[in-house]
Amino acid sequence: MAEVKALAASAAHGQLKPFSYDPGPLGAEEVDIAVEYCGVCHSDLSMLDNEWGISAYPFVPGHEAIGRIVGLGDVAAQKGLEIGQRVGVGWSASSCLHCEPCLHGDQQMCTTLQPTIVGRHGAFAEQVRSHWVWAVPIPEGVDPAEAGPLLCGGVTVFSPILDHVQPTDRVGVFGIGGLGHLAVMFLNKWGCDVTAFTSSPRKIEEAHKLGATRTASSTDTAELKKLTRTFDLLLITANVSLDWNDIIAMLKPNGRLHIVGAVLEPIPVSVFPLLLNNQSLGASPTGSRAQIDKMLRFCAQHDIKPLTEHFPMSQANAAMDHLRSGKAHYRIVLDNDL
Amino acid sequence: MAEVKALAASAAHGQLKPFSYDPGPLGAEEVDIAVEYCGVCHSDLSMLDNEWGISAYPFVPGHEAIGRIVGLGDVAAQKGLEIGQRVGVGWSASSCLHCEPCLHGDQQMCTTLQPTIVGRHGAFAEQVRSHWVWAVPIPEGVDPAEAGPLLCGGVTVFSPILDHVQPTDRVGVFGIGGLGHLAVMFLNKWGCDVTAFTSSPRKIEEAHKLGATRTASSTDTAELKKLTRTFDLLLITANVSLDWNDIIAMLKPNGRLHIVGAVLEPIPVSVFPLLLNNQSLGASPTGSRAQIDKMLRFCAQHDIKPLTEHFPMSQANAAMDHLRSGKAHYRIVLDNDL
Repeated sequence: MAEVKALAASAAHGQLKPFSYDPGPLGAEEVDIAVEYCGVCHSDLSMLDNEWGISAYPFVPGHEAIGRIVGLGDVAAQKGLEIGQRVGVGWSASSCLHCEPCLHGDQQMCTTLQPTIVGRHGAFAEQVRSHWVWAVPIPEGVDPAEAGPLLCGGVTVFSPILDHVQPTDRVGVFGIGGLGHLAVMFLNKWGCDVTAFTSSPRKIEEAHKLGATRTASSTDTAELKKLTRTFDLLLITANVSLDWNDIIAMLKPNGRLHIVGAVLEPIPVSVFPLLLNNQSLGASPTGSRAQIDKMLRFCAQHDIKPLTEHFPMSQANAAMDHLRSGKAHYRIVLDNDL
Repeated sequence: MAEVKALAASAAHGQLKPFSYDPGPLGAEEVDIAVEYCGVCHSDLSMLDNEWGISAYPFVPGHEAIGRIVGLGDVAAQKGLEIGQRVGVGWSASSCLHCEPCLHGDQQMCTTLQPTIVGRHGAFAEQVRSHWVWAVPIPEGVDPAEAGPLLCGGVTVFSPILDHVQPTDRVGVFGIGGLGHLAVMFLNKWGCDVTAFTSSPRKIEEAHKLGATRTASSTDTAELKKLTRTFDLLLITANVSLDWNDIIAMLKPNGRLHIVGAVLEPIPVSVFPLLLNNQSLGASPTGSRAQIDKMLRFCAQHDIKPLTEHFPMSQANAAMDHLRSGKAHYRIVLDNDL
């Protein structure tokens, strides 16, 4: 096929500029997807800036793609997918399916996982390529124009809810942004009592609209102390250092502090408080294929949609600047005009 | 009743000397137990030395007691207990039974838990008193002379095995001492592949006898690195700081680092490695009543006994010195001669 038109940065912190590349022959297990929409995730920024030291340039961001299948390898064609079908691709683009995590259904932890924007060209482009397992059919009832952010941000918070949360639990969500606003909506429909922790007063009213039972300040020590031994699970979606001891003290016995934000500074965990109360601290990446499928059905059932702001993909630099400013409300989606 | 003869220290780091006290009237829910044997736990030393800042003096150690019921309150008499019956008392001596953790079956995390040696007189004594829920019947097939260490040390490692371990798991145990040697025996009978991590070459052969599938050095970085992504659960029974990053790297995806040693220094947890592999770090105290019952039945079924050294209780100071020297092999039991 012809070259793929995309947007790429040629160096860390660089501007995104028109770039085209030859995708090479389509593998038997691969799918090509013509991108219609692509969400913008904070990890697109982290990768653009080489914050994790694993970026390669030219770098094409984009890993919350929604589009239609335009190419199907021979094996992929036998997996229930069809040309023209609408699918989504999130953080993960390729898994081997035969390593221990893959065979266990944890394809997102494949020992040779290829993320969509690590060592591959992402979805700020005409089209994106993935293994068939990560070309996820978008079910009836999910609006394709708004679904992109579910594929990475959404399942990143839905996965620990599936694994650790019962409807009778009291859950706190730290950080009401791209991930956190979805967590509040999911947990509300999950049947939970949800407390939204935010440092931004303007988000208080919105958090209630999203389904929070109450809100609290994420930085006011006195307010945190009032909530001692209150929560079954605290979900940290911010990637900043918080007052961890005060936060752990808000857990009930058997409670869990669960982190999905890429907190870079080590957390100094005091063992004694955890030990006295059989508590734990865990973290997780994006979700498995089965978890994405469950999330999409749950969204269709409960009419859950990310709150988005749309930019034309050709204005991706403005979108990235908007995200970088911390003002995204709450997730940006690029409409493809390349 | 008459005064209770005991051994007490009058100040931190003090020698244990004869001491007697009036136990006061027996409460309706309480049980008095004539102590026959009492295990010696590292937390007896920590409390004697006021290492945790919660000790009161005169301090009577002892919270791994085996003995016979000599007093039963009116309510306690209706809970299946009889005068003369052999029971054990561990770390926990009193729980309210009506708080949320108690009602959930987690009596060891009662919001008003009274440990046997915190604000109460322990079992280095003629007799010890507990709430009926913590006077645990010793089943047929469990040797009372060796059972004491199960009541605290034993259930402390049995509890996370019950909660987190499947027979198909690969488990590593750090620290082959009072707790660790029991963990290896339990895990062997649980059906697991068990690696014993020790810094002591003389324990290698013994670890194999206890049921370890293999042994490894707990301090040799090169050896730890060879075991990257090997374990479903790593159980830390030592209360020292270890090379935590190397240890976490040995966990498989979905793996858990579980701590039962009272590690005092905060653990600097790097979130990224946990996050990439959906891993967690947890800690737990001693077990619940149901967990103790299950452990005792499991021990009877599989003929699991702590490896002990016996001292007469009148020589408790020599026993404490032996424990302090790190040479206990692996758990000390005092035979009551007071």
